[in-house]
Amino acid sequence: MKKKAYEKELAELEFELAKLQETVQRKGMKIAILFEGRDAAGKGGLIKTVMRRMNARVWRIAALPKPSDRERTQWYFQRYVAHLPSGGEIVLFDRSWYNRAVVEPVMGFCTPQQHEAFMREVPLFEKMLIDSGIILLKYWIQISEETQERRFQDRACDPRKRWKLSPVDLEARRRWAEFSKHRNKMLETTSTDHAPWRVIDGDDKRKGRLNAIRSILDNIPYEFNEEAFAPIALPPRQSMEEAGYE
Amino acid sequence: MKKKAYEKELAELEFELAKLQETVQRKGMKIAILFEGRDAAGKGGLIKTVMRRMNARVWRIAALPKPSDRERTQWYFQRYVAHLPSGGEIVLFDRSWYNRAVVEPVMGFCTPQQHEAFMREVPLFEKMLIDSGIILLKYWIQISEETQERRFQDRACDPRKRWKLSPVDLEARRRWAEFSKHRNKMLETTSTDHAPWRVIDGDDKRKGRLNAIRSILDNIPYEFNEEAFAPIALPPRQSMEEAGYE
Amino acid sequence: MKKKAYEKELAELEFELAKLQETVQRKGMKIAILFEGRDAAGKGGLIKTVMRRMNARVWRIAALPKPSDRERTQWYFQRYVAHLPSGGEIVLFDRSWYNRAVVEPVMGFCTPQQHEAFMREVPLFEKMLIDSGIILLKYWIQISEETQERRFQDRACDPRKRWKLSPVDLEARRRWAEFSKHRNKMLETTSTDHAPWRVIDGDDKRKGRLNAIRSILDNIPYEFNEEAFAPIALPPRQSMEEAGYE
Amino acid sequence: MKKKAYEKELAELEFELAKLQETVQRKGMKIAILFEGRDAAGKGGLIKTVMRRMNARVWRIAALPKPSDRERTQWYFQRYVAHLPSGGEIVLFDRSWYNRAVVEPVMGFCTPQQHEAFMREVPLFEKMLIDSGIILLKYWIQISEETQERRFQDRACDPRKRWKLSPVDLEARRRWAEFSKHRNKMLETTSTDHAPWRVIDGDDKRKGRLNAIRSILDNIPYEFNEEAFAPIALPPRQSMEEAGYE
Ligand SMILES: Nc1ncnc2c1ncn2[C@@H]1O[C@H](COP(=O)(O)OP(=O)(O)O)[C@@H](O)[C@H]1O
Ligand SMILES: Nc1ncnc2c1ncn2[C@@H]1O[C@H](COP(=O)(O)OP(=O)(O)O)[C@@H](O)[C@H]1O
Ligand SMILES: Nc1ncnc2c1ncn2[C@@H]1O[C@H](COP(=O)(O)OP(=O)(O)O)[C@@H](O)[C@H]1O
Ligand SMILES: Nc1ncnc2c1ncn2[C@@H]1O[C@H](COP(=O)(O)O)[C@@H](O)[C@H]1O
Repeated sequence: MKKKAYEKELAELEFELAKLQETVQRKGMKIAILFEGRDAAGKGGLIKTVMRRMNARVWRIAALPKPSDRERTQWYFQRYVAHLPSGGEIVLFDRSWYNRAVVEPVMGFCTPQQHEAFMREVPLFEKMLIDSGIILLKYWIQISEETQERRFQDRACDPRKRWKLSPVDLEARRRWAEFSKHRNKMLETTSTDHAPWRVIDGDDKRKGRLNAIRSILDNIPYEFNEEAFAPIALPPRQSMEEAGYE
Repeated sequence: MKKKAYEKELAELEFELAKLQETVQRKGMKIAILFEGRDAAGKGGLIKTVMRRMNARVWRIAALPKPSDRERTQWYFQRYVAHLPSGGEIVLFDRSWYNRAVVEPVMGFCTPQQHEAFMREVPLFEKMLIDSGIILLKYWIQISEETQERRFQDRACDPRKRWKLSPVDLEARRRWAEFSKHRNKMLETTSTDHAPWRVIDGDDKRKGRLNAIRSILDNIPYEFNEEAFAPIALPPRQSMEEAGYE
Repeated sequence: MKKKAYEKELAELEFELAKLQETVQRKGMKIAILFEGRDAAGKGGLIKTVMRRMNARVWRIAALPKPSDRERTQWYFQRYVAHLPSGGEIVLFDRSWYNRAVVEPVMGFCTPQQHEAFMREVPLFEKMLIDSGIILLKYWIQISEETQERRFQDRACDPRKRWKLSPVDLEARRRWAEFSKHRNKMLETTSTDHAPWRVIDGDDKRKGRLNAIRSILDNIPYEFNEEAFAPIALPPRQSMEEAGYE
Repeated sequence: MKKKAYEKELAELEFELAKLQETVQRKGMKIAILFEGRDAAGKGGLIKTVMRRMNARVWRIAALPKPSDRERTQWYFQRYVAHLPSGGEIVLFDRSWYNRAVVEPVMGFCTPQQHEAFMREVPLFEKMLIDSGIILLKYWIQISEETQERRFQDRACDPRKRWKLSPVDLEARRRWAEFSKHRNKMLETTSTDHAPWRVIDGDDKRKGRLNAIRSILDNIPYEFNEEAFAPIALPPRQSMEEAGYE
């Protein structure tokens, strides 16, 4: 997709996002949006695009570090629960509890038992959040093996991007097929009526971003509160004298 | 500043930020950067620019909501302390504890006593953080009255930007002079040897952003760890058979 | 029950609690025990008795204050989740999420919709915790109307106990019958196979305490790790000289 | 001290604690009380005695576990700050940030540099808390070498108390003199005008407890709000009919 068309389209969508934001604030809505995908799928860039012009006191990124030794002993969801939205907030999860569906079992960060328990529990967990009034959207950014390879090679060669290749990435790349298997099982098993996975094609980054934003807008009910967007006349400024200075 | 020159310069700086990021991760450094400024100074845009290409698991935004009723009864710094960086993290504060130096007294959100207590305590508080190994940088994004007025008028007229004008903004605008008085006092009193305020001219947004990034790079010791940035040859991918599929 | 018999029995049970404690620490078990009951049922006294001789770094009380304005907008269970046990911990909840089953609807602190949603969700929530390896015990301390009345009258007259009568208590007393109705529904609906309510007769405080402790010991698998309890010979103390002083 | 005299005296003091508690709640005061002392000094028992008849929603114990790997990388005080009192709360610290003054350096859990930094910072940290309106009391429970030895021997022999001897305890016992040196330095250096250490003789447990409670009462301004303690006449109970049942 061409940059110009992209920017134009994006500007339109940003106006819609602003309306959504206003609705969320006014009504005290709670929104959690999960972004998952392979390494180099473009999760980070997508999230930054969504937030580009938005209010940082409404939209928040949750990109959790690996669990501490203490967190490892707790209920798996506990540290994620601490990041759920309060009223009037939208939280964008850059990776999420679904680490335990794909990355963790593939990389050996959890036991098979922990993985299976997660797969059983996660639909209940999400049902509960949704019943409590949280709007939950789940995006899988899909890229082809060729795209990942191209981006990886690009990162491998370009010193400016080299840091993007973590050791975990390289290992995950080696395990592409195992990764696919786990992703498939995740998309099947954890796509429920109340919280379906939505797959975004990430091979074309720009298209993918626009599609993700459109999907967000389609799946969160919002209104155009014209009053809040109506131009206003700003009253004149306070002069220095009025403020009590000479 | 022209877009093209800006983008070129920014790309250079982003490479430096990547080196900084690598150093922070490798050494487990703790960095807290505060961004303050009047409404429409461009804090949010600046923060998003700094993070544009960076790793969300290293760089984190802290844009705290107004305090809850319970938080209001606590030690003022308590809720900010919860957001301080762990080792290997850089936290960008979009507004910070300095709310109590300017916004809160001007808008009547705190008592004069609370304001004064804050002004006395804040140098000690910051000294402690720094002594404990946190690198603390404080930026004031400075804009002229004309710039703010132009941006406000723009937001007042343009439905797409209208939401950026909060009631607090409008009131703060009315109180420009009082705001100036408090800012001056803040810059004087709380600019200490260990944690000086650095003023960034924000009238030209692009220049301001580049200057802020340059200043960050100048004030955090980092190294170019060539090894981490050296191009690598990616090993061939695992085929489906190897992975045990047909 | 007579004090002497009580103290003797209690000492026996405390030895068992020590074995339980040792097991929990050694195996990294996670235990959550909820105590509910009407005002004056003796929840607080019971909890303090259980912990009397135990290690404060293993046993923790969670007696949450009323929710802050921000917490009120969140997922109802969120603030309780923050207090769940890590590995090696036993958390005693003095009142719990079941506030929303009885106190809140009776006192008008939640809407009927919130109450109903809670009643639907709570079995799922608890199932999840249990599946994740948390041992969850729920105690209802039952007292007769006469007992409550006697204790209330006692508190009403005795200046040393007067403070125990909160305005919420007095109102709840007025609503004894409504309270009963909600308690009955709670005991029926939220007593599941995986997390049944256990009712302790609290009319005789001492008996009630012993029974509660016995029930805890019966429902948490623990072992007597003899080695950990075997008497040891303490090596001689370091003298001042050895320590490098004169 | 004889049990009977002790219980009588304690009951008197508990009435005073109830008045204190009422004042704290009514005025929204914030109280933090630190209890430090050697192993077997009786910190835990003292804390439980203070709280014996008090409201668990006002008085809270903070007995922090050893820091997680993530916490170890943070500002040392950060995890303690999370436990500071909100308005209307009294927090009793069973061990505290002073771990870094004595236990940690003696046991090698921190570096000498970390210890020294702590000794420099702690007076500032406490000054800040106090300036913010927190009332901070610090108790050192003093026991003689003989007392510790007797209690240790008792624990070593009695299976019911054996668990109280942690490996850290045994090691600390071996290092009695080093411990003394660090304690002396702590009492000298960190006893400031605004936050002096108060030493309680713990050789006689009962006397020590009464003295500690007396000291708490002497050092927190409270009033006897007679109205809150005046006997009240309870209105008659709601009958079943009134409640709408047959
Ligand atoms: N030892 C571990 N245990 C559990 N999760 C881990 C561990 N190491 C890394 N992870 C998680 O694996 C995911 C992928 O890691 P990485 O590729 O380094 O991050 P990203 O691709 O998000 O930049 C992250 O969510 C990280 O927290
Ligand atoms: N406005 C409120 N909203 C929700 N819960 C409340 C509110 N006020 C009190 N509560 C809760 O009601 C319960 C009973 O209150 P109270 O009788 O004062 O405490 P207790 O009996 O535990 O000493 C407590 O758990 C308290 O947190
Ligand atoms: N590895 C460690 N690093 C830092 N502190 C530790 C470590 N291990 C134990 N501690 C701390 O040392 C103190 C004494 O430990 P211990 O004797 O086991 O507990 P207690 O005497 O309070 O029951 C506790 O505050 C504990 O958190
Ligand atoms: N009632 C309040 N008390 C304290 N701070 C507030 C209050 N209302 C708004 N603020 C803060 O004032 C700053 C400016 O608000 P705004 O312009 O609305 O983003 C933000 O940091 C808010 O958190």
